[in-house]
Amino acid sequence: MDNILDLRSDTVTQPTPAMRMAMANAIVGDDCYGDDPTVIELEQQAAAKLGKAAALFVPTGTMGNQLAIFTHCQPGNEVIVGDDSHIVWHEVGAAAVISGVQLRTIESHLGALDAAKIHSKIRHGADIHEPQTGLICVENAHSNGRVIPLATMQEIWQVAQAENVPVHLDGARVFNAAAHLNVDVREITQYCDTVMFCLSKGLAAPIGSILAGNEAFIAKARKKRKLLGGGLRQVGVLAAPGLIALNEMPQRLHEDHRNAQLLAQQLSTIEGIEIDLSAVHINMVWLRFTRELDVEFLMQTLTQAQIKANPPEHGWMRLVTHWQITNADLSRIVSALKTALN
Amino acid sequence: MDNILDLRSDTVTQPTPAMRMAMANAIVGDDCYGDDPTVIELEQQAAAKLGKAAALFVPTGTMGNQLAIFTHCQPGNEVIVGDDSHIVWHEVGAAAVISGVQLRTIESHLGALDAAKIHSKIRHGADIHEPQTGLICVENAHSNGRVIPLATMQEIWQVAQAENVPVHLDGARVFNAAAHLNVDVREITQYCDTVMFCLSKGLAAPIGSILAGNEAFIAKARKKRKLLGGGLRQVGVLAAPGLIALNEMPQRLHEDHRNAQLLAQQLSTIEGIEIDLSAVHINMVWLRFTRELDVEFLMQTLTQAQIKANPPEHGWMRLVTHWQITNADLSRIVSALKTALN
Amino acid sequence: MDNILDLRSDTVTQPTPAMRMAMANAIVGDDCYGDDPTVIELEQQAAAKLGKAAALFVPTGTMGNQLAIFTHCQPGNEVIVGDDSHIVWHEVGAAAVISGVQLRTIESHLGALDAAKIHSKIRHGADIHEPQTGLICVENAHSNGRVIPLATMQEIWQVAQAENVPVHLDGARVFNAAAHLNVDVREITQYCDTVMFCLSKGLAAPIGSILAGNEAFIAKARKKRKLLGGGLRQVGVLAAPGLIALNEMPQRLHEDHRNAQLLAQQLSTIEGIEIDLSAVHINMVWLRFTRELDVEFLMQTLTQAQIKANPPEHGWMRLVTHWQITNADLSRIVSALKTALN
Amino acid sequence: MDNILDLRSDTVTQPTPAMRMAMANAIVGDDCYGDDPTVIELEQQAAAKLGKAAALFVPTGTMGNQLAIFTHCQPGNEVIVGDDSHIVWHEVGAAAVISGVQLRTIESHLGALDAAKIHSKIRHGADIHEPQTGLICVENAHSNGRVIPLATMQEIWQVAQAENVPVHLDGARVFNAAAHLNVDVREITQYCDTVMFCLSKGLAAPIGSILAGNEAFIAKARKKRKLLGGGLRQVGVLAAPGLIALNEMPQRLHEDHRNAQLLAQQLSTIEGIEIDLSAVHINMVWLRFTRELDVEFLMQTLTQAQIKANPPEHGWMRLVTHWQITNADLSRIVSALKTALN
Repeated sequence: MDNILDLRSDTVTQPTPAMRMAMANAIVGDDCYGDDPTVIELEQQAAAKLGKAAALFVPTGTMGNQLAIFTHCQPGNEVIVGDDSHIVWHEVGAAAVISGVQLRTIESHLGALDAAKIHSKIRHGADIHEPQTGLICVENAHSNGRVIPLATMQEIWQVAQAENVPVHLDGARVFNAAAHLNVDVREITQYCDTVMFCLSKGLAAPIGSILAGNEAFIAKARKKRKLLGGGLRQVGVLAAPGLIALNEMPQRLHEDHRNAQLLAQQLSTIEGIEIDLSAVHINMVWLRFTRELDVEFLMQTLTQAQIKANPPEHGWMRLVTHWQITNADLSRIVSALKTALN
Repeated sequence: MDNILDLRSDTVTQPTPAMRMAMANAIVGDDCYGDDPTVIELEQQAAAKLGKAAALFVPTGTMGNQLAIFTHCQPGNEVIVGDDSHIVWHEVGAAAVISGVQLRTIESHLGALDAAKIHSKIRHGADIHEPQTGLICVENAHSNGRVIPLATMQEIWQVAQAENVPVHLDGARVFNAAAHLNVDVREITQYCDTVMFCLSKGLAAPIGSILAGNEAFIAKARKKRKLLGGGLRQVGVLAAPGLIALNEMPQRLHEDHRNAQLLAQQLSTIEGIEIDLSAVHINMVWLRFTRELDVEFLMQTLTQAQIKANPPEHGWMRLVTHWQITNADLSRIVSALKTALN
Repeated sequence: MDNILDLRSDTVTQPTPAMRMAMANAIVGDDCYGDDPTVIELEQQAAAKLGKAAALFVPTGTMGNQLAIFTHCQPGNEVIVGDDSHIVWHEVGAAAVISGVQLRTIESHLGALDAAKIHSKIRHGADIHEPQTGLICVENAHSNGRVIPLATMQEIWQVAQAENVPVHLDGARVFNAAAHLNVDVREITQYCDTVMFCLSKGLAAPIGSILAGNEAFIAKARKKRKLLGGGLRQVGVLAAPGLIALNEMPQRLHEDHRNAQLLAQQLSTIEGIEIDLSAVHINMVWLRFTRELDVEFLMQTLTQAQIKANPPEHGWMRLVTHWQITNADLSRIVSALKTALN
Repeated sequence: MDNILDLRSDTVTQPTPAMRMAMANAIVGDDCYGDDPTVIELEQQAAAKLGKAAALFVPTGTMGNQLAIFTHCQPGNEVIVGDDSHIVWHEVGAAAVISGVQLRTIESHLGALDAAKIHSKIRHGADIHEPQTGLICVENAHSNGRVIPLATMQEIWQVAQAENVPVHLDGARVFNAAAHLNVDVREITQYCDTVMFCLSKGLAAPIGSILAGNEAFIAKARKKRKLLGGGLRQVGVLAAPGLIALNEMPQRLHEDHRNAQLLAQQLSTIEGIEIDLSAVHINMVWLRFTRELDVEFLMQTLTQAQIKANPPEHGWMRLVTHWQITNADLSRIVSALKTALN
């Protein structure tokens, strides 16, 4: 598999050699008894890094988001969330099943929600007919590859504070957002009550995400994690590579972003491909095919060049960079796409 | 209470004298044993009138809508529904609690949903991350007082049929819609799989709504109605006035509509009041105050004139006509509002 | 229908003439606006009669019980309840669907739960693996026709108080229990936080039940009733006969009980029928056929005698008396069964 | 930590050196794309070993059990399950929250359910009031340390087959049961439709369980696993030690069982300790203190001897053996308890 370039997502990242070593050597205990020292260390470091009081290891980002909703809300509450967010799109309708909450899905501007529109949807449930808004969910970086500006985060936060509604940040790629904005991640997470981020994806850990918030919230979430079947045992074997993901990987994300930009620039010169270069915020390149395409030939060409990618949908294709895609690999990708379009 | 004009809603309608007589004389049985002849008669007549194979008496419109969602959907399904619909606004978040479904709320054009937008949201759940669209809900007449055109109903229906997704019509005021469109109600209900309408509201029965659909659907809904605590006993005492509501009241709704139009015309001549006359489709008048208003004085003035109305919200006020508001009452309302605005 | 004796259940009771008159003349309003004076009167009188601070009209006993569970509990709580109770047997699994609670079903002694066994099942959820006991449900009179002694009620109450767990009483027939024990109903309801009783069944109202508790509980339940689709409009038409059911019918229940005893005594002399006379507490006679039975012939014979009854199950048959079964009717029942067994 | 003997549970087992090596060297892929070869290998081998067509890796046993309930049942179904089972005791009430099912908890005989009693509780939901039995859950080995005989498993299976109700086996320790019965594990799993077993616990993998069943069931469960947040990424790092757990560890469980028996025999000779030796089926020793005990002194004594154990509850104490407790360690345990009781 040495030579394969896998551009489907940053979820495909393999653990680094250091992470593999860390797994093998992890000091572990039974986390359901609270005596796995490595996960305790990871949770403490992650909380500190995010500027929150406490944190919890969860096996997936979906569980982290759903646990946040489950912990913040009562059944019958309403959750305001972007119509194109991961929670709406890719979590299998979990929020209604697990938490019994009503999603209030609003259109976003390329992932960014409008604070005034959120404000207009907030309800306090005084009327006997009305559900109460239990949570606002934002996503940054958005899974469409855009980073939401700090100002937007702040506006939403101010509305939420004024209306006394908590904010959860789906920060699966919040370190990518911080890298793009060139700020400490706490500049972003200051505008939410709770945040989830993934140790897998761009940070390359094999498995795991972190949910952070205040201590009372995390204590409640810890019990609810058990209910959802997320109470692992010798979780130190995952926390050990997670510590490397947390401490060593965020600072190299700018490489992925630069590679994405370089790739985008080069691809945009190919006739038949259009790319909004200004929208390449993180490690994702969205390209649009401007003429009729032989998709089968495209996919064959990529396969022959040992490149994995998701096939285009409605004329759009997404390519994602990560630590296993180096600057030197970009030319192979560009030339494969050139071939495919001729 | 004789002289009071209650314009808050058509939900305030008192049963007619004939309905009161019917309650007193109703032949009844235990409907949980299936032997209340009056409710069986009502269910059969209602089904026929709506052009559906079967129908079910439910104590409220909310239960009818929620039972439709509960019967059409599996937990984790997605329901496409207007952001300003009754199901979203005024049913206390029930759909997630009872049915475990995820609402996908979309903006409407004054209540009307765009068929193409609905189409773009439909998902079939093939991807492991995606919920499946289980239902599309439309509302006609909309609780904002607008009637959705037949063409729009038909477009949505065609999309739904093509994508094999059922359509439920919240037709709480579907007879008002039919009266406005001047069509048989089946012209509207042909564009849905199931429909709920209220015997209370404009049709003036004290309690009760009808859910109609095909026989398999109604059989399932009947059992689920029991689960929700909607399996009444000697329900004939409500079905008897319900039969009057069904058979005698729809044909007089045009009177309420004409009174609403007359009221709107007269009020629109008052300085400080603005009314979109073209939006007065049914028995609801929405008026907007175009200058600063002393709300307390307004409400006092109305009370002194023995008029009940909900206070304005954000400068808008709704007045609703029904069988207890006659043509002769309109001048009292107009002059009270004139007084209040001087 | 004049001559038919319907012994299937007391749920089949027809409204009395006075109730029919009351429906026709009821002063009503829209209860969702809180302005139906008759239901307010009924709720106040019912609360007082039960010794509780507040009460709520609900369309069915099932909704009353489920609303109690929904209001007392959080999702994931555990509810301790008799395995043979109505909540387990005849409410379609609603508690898990609506409230997300785990039933902990325990065997009863003819309907009576053992306080020590309840005690042994109570959990406070301190351990991360354990659900918390959210509610204990008792049933009196039990739907098997037995009345639970006051001493048992008290023992359970003391355990519940000591452990700080609320008790809900499914008192669908609590006035029958009070009549059998010859005590004021408050002697029973003092041993619960909340209680539901039926205005229909033996009290003969056509539709409706009451849920009573403290004011904070009822305020919460009122909103949740809306969520379940139980927020009726001109509910006074049901509250008016409900007032008669509440005020005039409890004192005549001893007649139904005496008729049940007389019927039991006479039937027990028939060869082939066995009855535990000491178990005839209220208006239910359970008879066991001690020899092979031609069920078809039995049911035909009853039908010819204009008697309705549910067919025997596993050799047991239940006959229920109520206001439409008079002392004079008993001989017809006895002779029909005699004929059927020869 | 070298010298510590941890007898609290077999959940505390550390991964073996071979497992650690396997994690470091695992060939992995993104399992949400279905391209992690190691987990595919594990799922296939596990399915074959259990005699089922397909299997699914899940992060915890709780998720495996809950996923089974979620996949087998519809909301409102009833699940018959032992009152003292793990699903009732230690899964935080998840079944009602996630699946909306009503537990029907029945008393067991030391973990074994009576087939006739199960039979008497099965309902097919024909009556409009009744939930339908959706699943029977059995547990073998039971978490109380007892193994359920094959004959009992078979009787329950025959009832279930006759009544057309599926059976799920909580086989967290099914390989312990097989070792005790000295049969191939398929002799047990032939009596269930689906089975969950833990790779962690006695088999010593750090994290993970397997849910097995037919292909249609596993396909549905795979999507629902995503909904519960159990769709991991480079899961091969857990599947690699899981393969060792599956292939190398079951055959050594008899050592743990023999150590438990030896430990039980020696402890039973201490005055003040009573042990039912015939109940030591697997790796668990239950001892009862027959006289007043100084618990604090007991726990101190154990700590000084570098022994970890859960403190006694109601006079009972559980000690669990596993691969990190060798024959040579037993004397240290015995003498510590001797000291503590003098």
